[in-house]
Amino acid sequence: MYRKFVAEGDKVVQEFLNLGWTCDLLCAQHPEKYSNAIPVDVIIMKQITHFSTPSPVLAVFDLPQPSDLRLESVTLVLDGIRDPGNLGTIIRLCDWFGLSQLICSTDTVDCFNSKTVQASMGSLARVACHYIEDLPKFLSSQHQPIFGADLKGKSLYSFSFPKEGIYVFGSESHGLTKAMKAIINTQITIPNFRKDRGPESLNVATASAIFLSELFRAR
Amino acid sequence: MYRKFVAEGDKVVQEFLNLGWTCDLLCAQHPEKYSNAIPVDVIIMKQITHFSTPSPVLAVFDLPQPSDLRLESVTLVLDGIRDPGNLGTIIRLCDWFGLSQLICSTDTVDCFNSKTVQASMGSLARVACHYIEDLPKFLSSQHQPIFGADLKGKSLYSFSFPKEGIYVFGSESHGLTKAMKAIINTQITIPNFRKDRGPESLNVATASAIFLSELFRAR
Repeated sequence: MYRKFVAEGDKVVQEFLNLGWTCDLLCAQHPEKYSNAIPVDVIIMKQITHFSTPSPVLAVFDLPQPSDLRLESVTLVLDGIRDPGNLGTIIRLCDWFGLSQLICSTDTVDCFNSKTVQASMGSLARVACHYIEDLPKFLSSQHQPIFGADLKGKSLYSFSFPKEGIYVFGSESHGLTKAMKAIINTQITIPNFRKDRGPESLNVATASAIFLSELFRAR
Repeated sequence: MYRKFVAEGDKVVQEFLNLGWTCDLLCAQHPEKYSNAIPVDVIIMKQITHFSTPSPVLAVFDLPQPSDLRLESVTLVLDGIRDPGNLGTIIRLCDWFGLSQLICSTDTVDCFNSKTVQASMGSLARVACHYIEDLPKFLSSQHQPIFGADLKGKSLYSFSFPKEGIYVFGSESHGLTKAMKAIINTQITIPNFRKDRGPESLNVATASAIFLSELFRAR
């Protein structure tokens, strides 16, 4: 285990540097923009990038030391999210709404996946992702009400949310698991405004956005 | 110009078939699920798919005939959106909130891009995307108030929106253009809840989700 991860792109790399994350290696097409950068041309960058378009800068950082998990007044939980872009987008959303952590099941995609790092646009430097082995067991021991985002449930817009709560989002293809539903206190749904036969669901990142907006709009 | 597009995946292909879109060719790994399907194995599918993971089914459809554009009470406008996944996600959102159309600048990514079709999860079959040449000119002739999503502006949560309105979202990297800002009546912002130095912006699809939710929650 090297315990390293790769970040690409000016904005993303800069964010980790600004917050003092340990950088082991930094390759840049414009090395003058960074201290201790290894100059690389676009041909080399095409060979080392994780993306189809080569990045202007690619850096290797040390993984952070595990941090303590203490629930905030709003805690998002992701159970089985597989798409790295979705995870990165949700990390960016958490950051926007002032959350410092995110709880993930161990079968959720790695938050240090290159695509997740990219989609988080640097917010991963401020939002700690905690991967928990037995999520239902852990959550039910937390003494906070547990809400699940589901296609059937009480309307998000008419429910009166308590000051503290845990909000669980299931996987892109299967939603909430049976084990998770068993420990959820209330299932909440985003009403579908199309009266005729419409889409079956929303993307999990946009659903999280709508939940967070609704939870914070009144604060 | 062949005027065709490719859709992949069971759910997406089925949605276009159900709504009667003309299918020219359908290749499936399980052809018994479709009528007139050409059986293909995973090796062939790997060669014809647009994605890194081969789809169970790939179909070629005729592009639709251009439809009339008549503004609805809420109209979303995308100016220079480059990411096909973002566009597809926004189409799926429009569908969820009951909008039948979306207006795009001509430099917005093609809505029939394979990744857009995929991300829209079939909602593209119900939401017509209209590409308009000179967007500022067109919008300013529409006799509806024009709102722009921007990092500086009135708070989304305290603004009282009129019954009818046009909502413009700028590009992922540059936001609203000068020409667009010149015709926008009011700039609206999603408040950033992080008090210290936080993320600079939200992903355009999640920002659209938050806007649509806020516009429809009271209806």
